[in-house]
Amino acid sequence: MARRIIIIGAHAAGCDAAAAARLTDREAEIILLTNERYAGYSRCGLPFVIGGHIKSFQDLIVFPQSYFKMNRLDLRLESNVTNIDTSAKTVEVQYKDGRVEKLQYDSLIIATGARPAMPPIKGREKQGVYVLRTIDDGERIDQAVREAESAVVIGAGLIGLELGVAFVERGLKTTVVELLPQILPAMLDKDVADFVQRELEKNGLRIVTGKSVEEILGSDRVTGVAVAGEQIQADIVVVATGVRGNVELAQKAGVELGETKLIKVNMRMETNIKDVYACGDCAESINLITKRPVICQLGTTAVRQARVAGINAAGGYAVFPGVLGAAVTKLFDLEVGAVGLTEAFAKRVGIETVSMTLSGKTRASYYPGAMPLRIKLIAEKETEKIVGAQIVGGEGVAQRINALSFAILKEMSVKELAKAETCYAPPLSETWDPIILTAQALLRRIK
Amino acid sequence: MARRIIIIGAHAAGCDAAAAARLTDREAEIILLTNERYAGYSRCGLPFVIGGHIKSFQDLIVFPQSYFKMNRLDLRLESNVTNIDTSAKTVEVQYKDGRVEKLQYDSLIIATGARPAMPPIKGREKQGVYVLRTIDDGERIDQAVREAESAVVIGAGLIGLELGVAFVERGLKTTVVELLPQILPAMLDKDVADFVQRELEKNGLRIVTGKSVEEILGSDRVTGVAVAGEQIQADIVVVATGVRGNVELAQKAGVELGETKLIKVNMRMETNIKDVYACGDCAESINLITKRPVICQLGTTAVRQARVAGINAAGGYAVFPGVLGAAVTKLFDLEVGAVGLTEAFAKRVGIETVSMTLSGKTRASYYPGAMPLRIKLIAEKETEKIVGAQIVGGEGVAQRINALSFAILKEMSVKELAKAETCYAPPLSETWDPIILTAQALLRRIK
Repeated sequence: MARRIIIIGAHAAGCDAAAAARLTDREAEIILLTNERYAGYSRCGLPFVIGGHIKSFQDLIVFPQSYFKMNRLDLRLESNVTNIDTSAKTVEVQYKDGRVEKLQYDSLIIATGARPAMPPIKGREKQGVYVLRTIDDGERIDQAVREAESAVVIGAGLIGLELGVAFVERGLKTTVVELLPQILPAMLDKDVADFVQRELEKNGLRIVTGKSVEEILGSDRVTGVAVAGEQIQADIVVVATGVRGNVELAQKAGVELGETKLIKVNMRMETNIKDVYACGDCAESINLITKRPVICQLGTTAVRQARVAGINAAGGYAVFPGVLGAAVTKLFDLEVGAVGLTEAFAKRVGIETVSMTLSGKTRASYYPGAMPLRIKLIAEKETEKIVGAQIVGGEGVAQRINALSFAILKEMSVKELAKAETCYAPPLSETWDPIILTAQALLRRIK
Repeated sequence: MARRIIIIGAHAAGCDAAAAARLTDREAEIILLTNERYAGYSRCGLPFVIGGHIKSFQDLIVFPQSYFKMNRLDLRLESNVTNIDTSAKTVEVQYKDGRVEKLQYDSLIIATGARPAMPPIKGREKQGVYVLRTIDDGERIDQAVREAESAVVIGAGLIGLELGVAFVERGLKTTVVELLPQILPAMLDKDVADFVQRELEKNGLRIVTGKSVEEILGSDRVTGVAVAGEQIQADIVVVATGVRGNVELAQKAGVELGETKLIKVNMRMETNIKDVYACGDCAESINLITKRPVICQLGTTAVRQARVAGINAAGGYAVFPGVLGAAVTKLFDLEVGAVGLTEAFAKRVGIETVSMTLSGKTRASYYPGAMPLRIKLIAEKETEKIVGAQIVGGEGVAQRINALSFAILKEMSVKELAKAETCYAPPLSETWDPIILTAQALLRRIK
């Protein structure tokens, strides 16, 4: 009899797990269960639809119905999994029409994702307060923007800033409020974050750091927020203070959580329970540098974990090596990327580092359109291996982050990087790429 | 007494050698001798000035007079070195005014570069036949373009194609004629070259491969070329059939040449003669993959060799590891890059390879402006290590080549690359970067 693989969740992790499972076992019955109305879309694209760069939310659907059909993937929308019984190897599903069914599985993949964290801010129940996680969320915000003149975003992580930028692009007077003393605290060190903040402010986005929103103001509808004595007007308030993994269902079924409070998995993405796998925003990762569990809720992590979970759930063999946390975004015309450890994080986990920040150009300096590029390289002090990088610039940031991701993965030393070879043509790069020059400068600092 | 370092040549190699020498020895007397009217400009930028992307040839000067002054570098233009006496440790210079001087050196750096090869084509002495190596060459061609309607470029290497594209951009009816059966033979395999050729032809550049120019036609002035029975009209003919290293002066002084007929150097860029170094287009390189001498006349190789030569000539210690041949260019809106071995070259030196070519997108497929990207990955058959890559696409090619340059340098296997981490944001990249997907596909082919 064909193996039955049940996948709870049908976004980045769920869909990529299904795809990998199908490639591994052509015969398996594969069922995807999601409580959402839409499956297989890019959450990361939501702020860019709101900003007007992408025409419609429907454009974000990267796995259309036809994909599921073609690959014989049994996708069930608006289907809520209410219980997992790991002894009986069943999941209990409640469908849209109220019908409840118990489904037997051979392998179960938990890809339940995460939900926006909602801190207990006074007034958070008011009309005009939003979170952004789903297409439905996005459509609500998009609708509200049409009638709004001002907005406040609470939280200056990736989503918070992308949304703040989108609001400015849509003509709203916008403020982002961040409790911590810097923007993008999980991704950048404060020096780089401050540089990015100034660039965003130049483009008309107001940013308040180191202050908390004391209250969301207004009677039924929001009219603003109170921040450190100041009242900031806002027709829209979006809470973007991070996400919480949806681990409750798994936990209730006896699936063990790790020290990060996400689902603990081994290299095969297996949980503590046989034939139960987890991947995506609900699952823990191992940081390749510190070798310790970390929360790494990125789309790229989700799909890479999912591929491994899918192969194993379908009877194959694959391992997931861990993460470096390579991340990038585009804020106005500024590309901001990072990989590996920040200096702050390294310090927190007891790793001593040396770093160097240098500015350069994205093309030959005489070539029209050459844009500034700012590179921070971080190395571990004893081994002098590269352990982190933060890059901000007008173009070519994502691929430079990827290059450094490969360098960190292969434990490249500062010295090796200072001598590494890059390609050159005046319209596309400098003779000495700024990455190499930064490594050379860092090397001089080490000596 | 201060050390005296004499550098013959004052372009990419000469200037970077001088800069590194100055950093190493603050007191040294450093003299740069060049027979050209201009020093320290970017030769690689010449075709882009002719194409109209860069306003003036003067913009290409990246080391202005002030730079030499500030760093106390004694630059002597239009100064022709006529002899090197390695026993007496002197060079004989003839200055512009006819004066001849013998200069004593402690260290000598030969950075004499290369000159355009001129095959013995009948009619090559006619007016309207050009080569492109110097600003003077560039200005002559630029002037000729103003009065021309058509052009033929002989040779479809980087310079030949960049120039062909520039001519089309300037409105000339242009044909590039290549003797070998493909364009960019040193950089690309035929399959990728043919793809690039079709793209260039779509943009209005005519390309004839596998045929030789039998004669340059016209009485005193060129009127066209004869190619395999066809007469192609041309007011301008540029010969771009590669360059020859300027090694005669060195050879005459007893400096040994290698099997590539360029100057043989050790890892410190020392020649066979004590205190005599060589770098740039006149010096041999070691290919990091084959460990054999190669000709690698790229700007990036020149500056990296020069840095090592400069440090050593100034009493420091540095070694040059070798080259991977990372190269890139932009032809119309198409970026074309390569690094490592082509399959054809690997075969020629007895290395068996497996390869995979895949197409992808430069951004999330739903994001406006996402452009196609075509990636060819080449791995050595037994070790399954990546040994080469060729990428063609609308954006992000240079930095992807750099990422793969790092991967090859650190001996990354196909399997490791298939699992490597990349960053993702819809405006900048795909969840799975096409590089990773190509590695995954190559891995399936290996299995």
